[in-house]
Amino acid sequence: MFTLFYAPKTCARASHIALAESGLPYRIQRLDFAGGEQRSPAYLAINPKGRVPALQTPRGILTETPAILAFIAQSAPAAQLAPLDDAFAFAQLQAFNSYLASTVHVAHAHRTRGARWADDAAAQESMQRKVASNMRDCFELIAAGMLQGPWVLGERYSVADAYLYTIASWLPGDGVPLDTLPQIQAHQARMEERPAVRKALAEEAAGQVQA
Amino acid sequence: MFTLFYAPKTCARASHIALAESGLPYRIQRLDFAGGEQRSPAYLAINPKGRVPALQTPRGILTETPAILAFIAQSAPAAQLAPLDDAFAFAQLQAFNSYLASTVHVAHAHRTRGARWADDAAAQESMQRKVASNMRDCFELIAAGMLQGPWVLGERYSVADAYLYTIASWLPGDGVPLDTLPQIQAHQARMEERPAVRKALAEEAAGQVQA
Repeated sequence: MFTLFYAPKTCARASHIALAESGLPYRIQRLDFAGGEQRSPAYLAINPKGRVPALQTPRGILTETPAILAFIAQSAPAAQLAPLDDAFAFAQLQAFNSYLASTVHVAHAHRTRGARWADDAAAQESMQRKVASNMRDCFELIAAGMLQGPWVLGERYSVADAYLYTIASWLPGDGVPLDTLPQIQAHQARMEERPAVRKALAEEAAGQVQA
Repeated sequence: MFTLFYAPKTCARASHIALAESGLPYRIQRLDFAGGEQRSPAYLAINPKGRVPALQTPRGILTETPAILAFIAQSAPAAQLAPLDDAFAFAQLQAFNSYLASTVHVAHAHRTRGARWADDAAAQESMQRKVASNMRDCFELIAAGMLQGPWVLGERYSVADAYLYTIASWLPGDGVPLDTLPQIQAHQARMEERPAVRKALAEEAAGQVQA
Protein backbone atom coordinates (compact mmCIF):
# COMPACT_ATOMS: atom_id res chain seq x y z
CA MET A 1 0.00 0.00 0.00
CA PHE A 2 1.20 3.49 -0.89
CA THR A 3 0.21 6.66 0.99
CA LEU A 4 0.43 9.97 -0.83
CA PHE A 5 0.93 13.09 1.30
CA TYR A 6 -0.59 16.02 -0.54
CA ALA A 7 -2.27 19.40 -0.36
CA PRO A 8 -5.05 20.40 -2.75
CA LYS A 9 -4.12 22.14 -6.01
CA THR A 10 -0.39 21.51 -5.56
CA CYS A 11 1.89 19.52 -7.84
CA ALA A 12 1.03 16.45 -5.74
CA ARG A 13 -2.02 16.17 -8.00
CA ALA A 14 0.19 14.67 -10.71
CA SER A 15 1.26 11.78 -8.48
CA HIS A 16 -2.35 11.35 -7.34
CA ILE A 17 -3.57 11.00 -10.92
CA ALA A 18 -0.74 8.55 -11.68
CA LEU A 19 -1.78 6.43 -8.69
CA ALA A 20 -5.40 6.48 -9.84
CA GLU A 21 -4.31 5.42 -13.34
CA SER A 22 -1.99 2.71 -12.05
CA GLY A 23 -4.57 0.41 -10.50
CA LEU A 24 -2.31 0.06 -7.44
CA PRO A 25 -3.91 0.35 -3.98
CA TYR A 26 -3.23 3.68 -2.30
CA ARG A 27 -4.36 6.04 0.41
CA ILE A 28 -4.09 9.82 0.52
CA GLN A 29 -3.18 12.01 3.47
CA ARG A 30 -4.09 15.66 3.21
CA LEU A 31 -1.86 18.27 4.84
CA ASP A 32 -3.20 21.54 6.18
CA PHE A 33 -0.93 23.96 4.34
CA ALA A 34 -2.79 27.02 5.67
CA GLY A 35 -2.05 25.77 9.19
CA GLY A 36 1.59 25.10 8.32
CA GLU A 37 1.34 21.33 8.78
CA GLN A 38 4.05 20.83 6.15
CA ARG A 39 6.49 22.42 8.63
CA SER A 40 5.31 20.36 11.64
CA PRO A 41 7.82 18.03 13.32
CA ALA A 42 5.60 15.05 12.46
CA TYR A 43 5.67 15.83 8.75
CA LEU A 44 9.32 16.89 8.68
CA ALA A 45 10.09 13.41 10.00
CA ILE A 46 8.42 12.08 6.84
CA ASN A 47 9.82 14.68 4.44
CA PRO A 48 12.58 16.93 5.83
CA LYS A 49 12.06 19.26 2.86
CA GLY A 50 8.63 20.26 4.22
CA ARG A 51 7.06 19.95 0.79
CA VAL A 52 4.58 17.76 -1.04
CA PRO A 53 4.30 15.29 -2.60
CA ALA A 54 5.77 12.55 -0.46
CA LEU A 55 4.95 8.94 -1.18
CA GLN A 56 5.15 6.46 1.66
CA THR A 57 5.99 3.00 0.36
CA PRO A 58 6.79 -0.30 2.09
CA ARG A 59 10.48 0.43 1.39
CA GLY A 60 10.47 4.03 2.62
CA ILE A 61 9.55 7.57 1.60
CA LEU A 62 9.97 8.98 -1.90
CA THR A 63 9.85 12.66 -2.82
CA GLU A 64 10.10 14.79 -5.97
CA THR A 65 7.38 14.50 -8.60
CA PRO A 66 9.53 13.23 -11.51
CA ALA A 67 10.95 10.44 -9.31
CA ILE A 68 7.53 9.47 -7.94
CA LEU A 69 5.94 9.46 -11.39
CA ALA A 70 8.59 7.16 -12.87
CA PHE A 71 8.37 4.93 -9.80
CA ILE A 72 4.59 4.55 -10.09
CA ALA A 73 4.95 3.73 -13.78
CA GLN A 74 7.62 1.11 -13.03
CA SER A 75 5.54 -0.32 -10.17
CA ALA A 76 2.51 -0.88 -12.42
CA PRO A 77 3.89 -1.98 -15.80
CA ALA A 78 0.51 -3.32 -16.93
CA ALA A 79 -0.95 0.18 -16.76
CA GLN A 80 1.57 1.32 -19.41
CA LEU A 81 2.15 4.74 -17.89
CA ALA A 82 5.68 5.08 -19.33
CA PRO A 83 7.70 3.50 -22.18
CA LEU A 84 9.60 1.22 -19.81
CA ASP A 85 11.05 -0.96 -22.57
CA ASP A 86 12.64 1.91 -24.53
CA ALA A 87 15.39 3.87 -22.78
CA PHE A 88 15.32 6.75 -25.28
CA ALA A 89 11.54 7.22 -25.10
CA PHE A 90 11.71 6.92 -21.32
CA ALA A 91 14.38 9.64 -21.33
CA GLN A 92 12.12 11.88 -23.43
CA LEU A 93 9.39 11.44 -20.84
CA GLN A 94 11.86 12.21 -18.08
CA ALA A 95 13.17 15.29 -19.90
CA PHE A 96 9.62 16.58 -20.17
CA ASN A 97 8.94 15.99 -16.48
CA SER A 98 12.26 17.51 -15.48
CA TYR A 99 11.50 20.65 -17.48
CA LEU A 100 8.16 20.98 -15.70
CA ALA A 101 9.83 20.53 -12.30
CA SER A 102 12.96 22.65 -12.78
CA THR A 103 11.76 25.44 -15.03
CA VAL A 104 7.96 25.67 -15.23
CA HIS A 105 7.06 24.95 -11.61
CA VAL A 106 9.91 27.27 -10.57
CA ALA A 107 8.59 30.05 -12.84
CA HIS A 108 5.17 29.65 -11.22
CA ALA A 109 6.55 29.58 -7.68
CA HIS A 110 7.88 33.12 -8.03
CA ARG A 111 4.29 34.36 -7.74
CA THR A 112 3.50 33.03 -4.27
CA ARG A 113 6.80 31.64 -2.96
CA GLY A 114 9.12 34.54 -3.75
CA ALA A 115 10.27 34.58 -0.12
CA ARG A 116 12.33 31.53 -0.95
CA TRP A 117 14.66 33.64 -3.07
CA ALA A 118 14.48 37.21 -1.73
CA ASP A 119 13.64 38.69 1.66
CA ASP A 120 12.29 42.10 0.74
CA ALA A 121 8.76 42.78 -0.43
CA ALA A 122 9.78 44.97 -3.37
CA ALA A 123 11.88 42.16 -4.86
CA GLN A 124 9.06 39.67 -4.36
CA GLU A 125 6.67 42.02 -6.14
CA SER A 126 9.14 42.40 -8.96
CA MET A 127 9.25 38.62 -9.32
CA GLN A 128 5.46 38.44 -9.38
CA ARG A 129 5.32 40.88 -12.29
CA LYS A 130 7.37 38.49 -14.43
CA VAL A 131 5.42 35.30 -13.74
CA ALA A 132 2.82 35.64 -16.48
CA SER A 133 5.35 36.21 -19.25
CA ASN A 134 7.62 33.43 -17.99
CA MET A 135 4.74 30.95 -17.80
CA ARG A 136 3.60 31.97 -21.27
CA ASP A 137 7.11 31.46 -22.66
CA CYS A 138 7.30 28.01 -21.07
CA PHE A 139 3.94 26.89 -22.38
CA GLU A 140 4.55 28.28 -25.86
CA LEU A 141 7.68 26.12 -25.98
CA ILE A 142 5.65 23.13 -24.76
CA ALA A 143 2.92 23.75 -27.33
CA ALA A 144 5.49 24.25 -30.11
CA GLY A 145 6.71 20.68 -30.00
CA MET A 146 7.34 19.19 -26.59
CA LEU A 147 3.66 18.20 -26.43
CA GLN A 148 3.57 15.85 -29.42
CA GLY A 149 -0.20 15.43 -29.31
CA PRO A 150 -2.70 14.20 -28.49
CA TRP A 151 -0.58 13.19 -25.47
CA VAL A 152 2.86 14.43 -24.45
CA LEU A 153 4.55 11.39 -26.02
CA GLY A 154 2.23 11.27 -29.04
CA GLU A 155 -0.31 8.49 -29.26
CA ARG A 156 0.81 7.02 -25.96
CA TYR A 157 -0.60 8.37 -22.69
CA SER A 158 1.93 8.59 -19.84
CA VAL A 159 2.56 10.06 -16.41
CA ALA A 160 3.88 13.17 -18.18
CA ASP A 161 0.29 13.98 -19.12
CA ALA A 162 -0.75 13.95 -15.48
CA TYR A 163 2.08 16.35 -14.67
CA LEU A 164 1.37 18.69 -17.59
CA TYR A 165 -2.32 18.73 -16.66
CA THR A 166 -1.50 19.66 -13.07
CA ILE A 167 0.87 22.52 -13.83
CA ALA A 168 -1.24 23.89 -16.70
CA SER A 169 -4.14 24.21 -14.25
CA TRP A 170 -2.15 27.01 -12.60
CA LEU A 171 -2.02 29.14 -15.76
CA PRO A 172 -5.20 31.21 -15.21
CA GLY A 173 -4.06 32.12 -11.69
CA ASP A 174 -0.68 33.08 -13.11
CA GLY A 175 -2.30 35.49 -15.56
CA VAL A 176 -2.26 33.31 -18.68
CA PRO A 177 -5.80 32.58 -19.93
CA LEU A 178 -6.05 28.98 -21.12
CA ASP A 179 -7.87 29.94 -24.32
CA THR A 180 -4.74 31.74 -25.49
CA LEU A 181 -3.00 28.35 -25.58
CA PRO A 182 -5.43 26.17 -27.54
CA GLN A 183 -3.22 23.06 -27.60
CA ILE A 184 -2.85 23.17 -23.83
CA GLN A 185 -6.54 23.84 -23.35
CA ALA A 186 -7.39 20.85 -25.56
CA HIS A 187 -5.01 18.68 -23.57
CA GLN A 188 -6.70 19.78 -20.34
CA ALA A 189 -10.11 18.86 -21.74
CA ARG A 190 -8.79 15.50 -22.96
CA MET A 191 -7.45 14.76 -19.49
CA GLU A 192 -10.75 15.61 -17.81
CA GLU A 193 -12.48 12.94 -19.89
CA ARG A 194 -10.35 10.26 -18.21
CA PRO A 195 -12.07 8.41 -15.35
CA ALA A 196 -8.84 8.27 -13.31
CA VAL A 197 -8.46 12.05 -13.50
CA ARG A 198 -12.04 12.58 -12.35
CA LYS A 199 -11.51 10.08 -9.55
CA ALA A 200 -8.33 11.79 -8.36
CA LEU A 201 -9.90 15.25 -8.44
CA ALA A 202 -12.89 14.04 -6.41
CA GLU A 203 -10.59 12.35 -3.89
CA GLU A 204 -8.38 15.43 -3.64
CA ALA A 205 -11.39 17.56 -2.72
CA ALA A 206 -12.86 14.97 -0.35
CA GLY A 207 -9.55 14.18 1.35
CA GLN A 208 -9.99 10.42 1.02
CA VAL A 209 -9.78 7.69 -1.58
CA GLN A 210 -13.14 6.65 -2.99
CA ALA A 211 -14.05 3.01 -3.52
CA MET B 1 28.01 7.81 -30.87
CA PHE B 2 26.77 10.47 -28.47
CA THR B 3 27.69 14.15 -28.66
CA LEU B 4 27.42 16.27 -25.53
CA PHE B 5 26.87 20.00 -25.99
CA TYR B 6 28.31 21.78 -22.99
CA ALA B 7 29.93 24.90 -21.59
CA PRO B 8 32.71 24.75 -18.99
CA LYS B 9 31.75 24.77 -15.30
CA THR B 10 28.03 24.35 -16.01
CA CYS B 11 25.79 21.49 -14.91
CA ALA B 12 26.71 19.74 -18.19
CA ARG B 13 29.77 18.51 -16.30
CA ALA B 14 27.59 15.88 -14.59
CA SER B 15 26.58 14.33 -17.92
CA HIS B 16 30.19 14.54 -19.10
CA ILE B 17 31.43 12.60 -16.07
CA ALA B 18 28.66 10.04 -16.55
CA LEU B 19 29.72 9.55 -20.17
CA ALA B 20 33.34 9.14 -19.11
CA GLU B 21 32.29 6.56 -16.49
CA SER B 22 30.01 4.71 -18.91
CA GLY B 23 32.62 3.42 -21.32
CA LEU B 24 30.36 4.47 -24.21
CA PRO B 25 31.94 6.35 -27.14
CA TYR B 26 31.20 10.08 -27.09
CA ARG B 27 32.27 13.44 -28.40
CA ILE B 28 31.93 16.84 -26.77
CA GLN B 29 30.98 20.12 -28.40
CA ARG B 30 31.81 23.27 -26.47
CA LEU B 31 29.52 26.29 -26.73
CA ASP B 32 30.81 29.83 -26.41
CA PHE B 33 28.50 31.09 -23.67
CA ALA B 34 30.30 34.46 -23.44
CA GLY B 35 29.57 34.95 -27.15
CA GLY B 36 25.94 33.89 -26.72
CA GLU B 37 26.26 30.75 -28.84
CA GLN B 38 23.56 29.05 -26.76
CA ARG B 39 21.10 31.57 -28.24
CA SER B 40 22.30 31.14 -31.85
CA PRO B 41 19.82 29.79 -34.44
CA ALA B 42 22.10 26.80 -35.02
CA TYR B 43 22.03 25.78 -31.37
CA LEU B 44 18.36 26.62 -30.83
CA ALA B 45 17.65 24.12 -33.62
CA ILE B 46 19.37 21.52 -31.41
CA ASN B 47 17.91 22.69 -28.10
CA PRO B 48 15.10 25.28 -28.30
CA LYS B 49 15.60 25.99 -24.59
CA GLY B 50 19.00 27.58 -25.32
CA ARG B 51 20.60 25.73 -22.42
CA VAL B 52 23.13 23.01 -21.77
CA PRO B 53 23.46 20.09 -21.53
CA ALA B 54 22.03 18.63 -24.71
CA LEU B 55 22.92 15.11 -25.73
CA GLN B 56 22.75 14.22 -29.39
CA THR B 57 21.98 10.53 -29.83
CA PRO B 58 21.24 8.37 -32.89
CA ARG B 59 17.53 8.63 -31.94
CA GLY B 60 17.47 12.41 -31.38
CA ILE B 61 18.33 15.08 -28.83
CA LEU B 62 17.89 14.71 -25.09
CA THR B 63 17.94 17.57 -22.58
CA GLU B 64 17.66 18.00 -18.78
CA THR B 65 20.40 16.58 -16.58
CA PRO B 66 18.29 14.07 -14.59
CA ALA B 67 16.91 12.58 -17.83
CA ILE B 68 20.34 12.42 -19.48
CA LEU B 69 21.95 10.84 -16.42
CA ALA B 70 19.35 8.07 -16.17
CA PHE B 71 19.61 7.51 -19.93
CA ILE B 72 23.39 7.13 -19.82
CA ALA B 73 23.07 4.68 -16.93
CA GLN B 74 20.44 2.66 -18.82
CA SER B 75 22.54 2.74 -22.01
CA ALA B 76 25.59 1.26 -20.25
CA PRO B 77 24.25 -1.30 -17.76
CA ALA B 78 27.65 -2.94 -17.38
CA ALA B 79 29.05 0.27 -15.88
CA GLN B 80 26.52 0.02 -13.02
CA LEU B 81 25.87 3.74 -12.79
CA ALA B 82 22.34 3.30 -11.38
CA PRO B 83 20.36 0.56 -9.60
CA LEU B 84 18.50 -0.40 -12.76
CA ASP B 85 17.09 -3.64 -11.33
CA ASP B 86 15.46 -2.03 -8.28
CA ALA B 87 12.65 0.47 -8.93
CA PHE B 88 12.70 1.87 -5.39
CA ALA B 89 16.46 2.43 -5.31
CA PHE B 90 16.27 3.92 -8.80
CA ALA B 91 13.55 6.28 -7.56
CA GLN B 92 15.77 7.33 -4.65
CA LEU B 93 18.51 8.19 -7.13
CA GLN B 94 16.01 10.08 -9.24
CA ALA B 95 14.65 11.96 -6.21
CA PHE B 96 18.18 13.06 -5.36
CA ASN B 97 18.86 14.23 -8.90
CA SER B 98 15.50 15.99 -9.11
CA TYR B 99 16.21 17.87 -5.88
CA LEU B 100 19.54 19.05 -7.29
CA ALA B 101 17.86 20.18 -10.52
CA SER B 102 14.69 21.77 -9.14
CA THR B 103 15.85 23.24 -5.85
CA VAL B 104 19.65 23.42 -5.55
CA HIS B 105 20.54 24.47 -9.09
CA VAL B 106 17.65 26.95 -8.95
CA ALA B 107 18.93 28.40 -5.66
CA HIS B 108 22.36 28.85 -7.26
CA ALA B 109 20.95 30.39 -10.44
CA HIS B 110 19.56 33.36 -8.51
CA ARG B 111 23.13 34.65 -8.18
CA THR B 112 23.93 35.07 -11.87
CA ARG B 113 20.65 34.39 -13.69
CA GLY B 114 18.29 36.55 -11.66
CA ALA B 115 17.13 38.25 -14.86
CA ARG B 116 15.12 35.11 -15.53
CA TRP B 117 12.76 35.97 -12.69
CA ALA B 118 12.86 39.76 -12.24
CA ASP B 119 13.67 42.63 -14.56
CA ASP B 120 14.95 45.29 -12.18
CA ALA B 121 18.48 45.41 -10.80
CA ALA B 122 17.42 45.97 -7.19
CA ALA B 123 15.38 42.77 -7.18
CA GLN B 124 18.23 40.83 -8.75
CA GLU B 125 20.60 42.14 -6.08
CA SER B 126 18.13 41.14 -3.40
CA MET B 127 18.10 37.60 -4.83
CA GLN B 128 21.89 37.51 -4.84
CA ARG B 129 21.99 38.33 -1.14
CA LYS B 130 20.00 35.19 -0.35
CA VAL B 131 22.01 32.71 -2.43
CA ALA B 132 24.63 31.80 0.17
CA SER B 133 22.09 30.98 2.89
CA ASN B 134 19.87 29.05 0.48
CA MET B 135 22.78 27.00 -0.82
CA ARG B 136 23.93 26.32 2.73
CA ASP B 137 20.43 25.17 3.71
CA CYS B 138 20.29 22.82 0.71
CA PHE B 139 23.69 21.29 1.37
CA GLU B 140 23.07 20.91 5.09
CA LEU B 141 19.98 18.87 4.19
CA ILE B 142 22.05 16.82 1.74
CA ALA B 143 24.78 16.25 4.32
CA ALA B 144 22.22 15.35 7.01
CA GLY B 145 21.05 12.21 5.26
CA MET B 146 20.44 12.45 1.54
CA LEU B 147 24.14 11.71 0.96
CA GLN B 148 24.28 8.26 2.54
CA GLY B 149 28.07 8.01 2.24
CA PRO B 150 30.57 7.32 0.97
CA TRP B 151 28.48 7.78 -2.17
CA VAL B 152 25.01 9.29 -2.53
CA LEU B 153 23.37 5.84 -2.55
CA GLY B 154 25.72 4.39 0.08
CA GLU B 155 28.32 1.86 -1.00
CA ARG B 156 27.20 2.06 -4.60
CA TYR B 157 28.57 4.80 -6.86
CA SER B 158 26.02 6.26 -9.30
CA VAL B 159 25.35 9.13 -11.67
CA ALA B 160 23.97 11.05 -8.67
CA ASP B 161 27.55 11.40 -7.45
CA ALA B 162 28.57 13.07 -10.69
CA TYR B 163 25.69 15.52 -10.31
CA LEU B 164 26.38 16.26 -6.64
CA TYR B 165 30.06 16.80 -7.43
CA THR B 166 29.20 19.26 -10.19
CA ILE B 167 26.78 21.40 -8.20
CA ALA B 168 28.88 21.33 -5.02
CA SER B 169 31.76 22.80 -7.03
CA TRP B 170 29.71 26.01 -7.22
CA LEU B 171 29.57 26.44 -3.43
CA PRO B 172 32.71 28.59 -2.96
CA GLY B 173 31.53 31.00 -5.66
CA ASP B 174 28.14 31.14 -3.98
CA GLY B 175 29.72 32.18 -0.68
CA VAL B 176 29.74 28.81 1.07
CA PRO B 177 33.30 27.64 1.85
CA LEU B 178 33.62 23.90 1.26
CA ASP B 179 35.45 23.33 4.54
CA THR B 180 32.30 24.33 6.40
CA LEU B 181 30.60 21.24 4.91
CA PRO B 182 33.08 18.45 5.65
CA GLN B 183 30.93 15.61 4.27
CA ILE B 184 30.53 17.44 0.98
CA GLN B 185 34.21 18.33 0.88
CA ALA B 186 35.14 14.67 1.46
CA HIS B 187 32.78 13.62 -1.33
CA GLN B 188 34.44 16.12 -3.67
CA ALA B 189 37.87 14.72 -2.83
CA ARG B 190 36.63 11.14 -3.31
CA MET B 191 35.28 12.06 -6.73
CA GLU B 192 38.55 13.65 -7.81
CA GLU B 193 40.34 10.37 -7.20
CA ARG B 194 38.25 8.72 -9.92
CA PRO B 195 39.99 8.43 -13.32
CA ALA B 196 36.76 9.18 -15.19
CA VAL B 197 36.32 12.43 -13.29
CA ARG B 198 39.88 13.50 -14.05
CA LYS B 199 39.38 12.55 -17.69
CA ALA B 200 36.16 14.57 -17.96
CA LEU B 201 37.67 17.64 -16.29
CA ALA B 202 40.67 17.55 -18.63
CA GLU B 203 38.40 17.17 -21.66
CA GLU B 204 36.14 19.98 -20.46
CA ALA B 205 39.10 22.34 -20.29
CA ALA B 206 40.62 21.18 -23.58
CA GLY B 207 37.32 21.18 -25.47
CA GLN B 208 37.84 17.71 -26.89
CA VAL B 209 37.69 14.09 -25.87
CA GLN B 210 41.05 12.59 -25.06
CA ALA B 211 42.07 9.16 -26.27
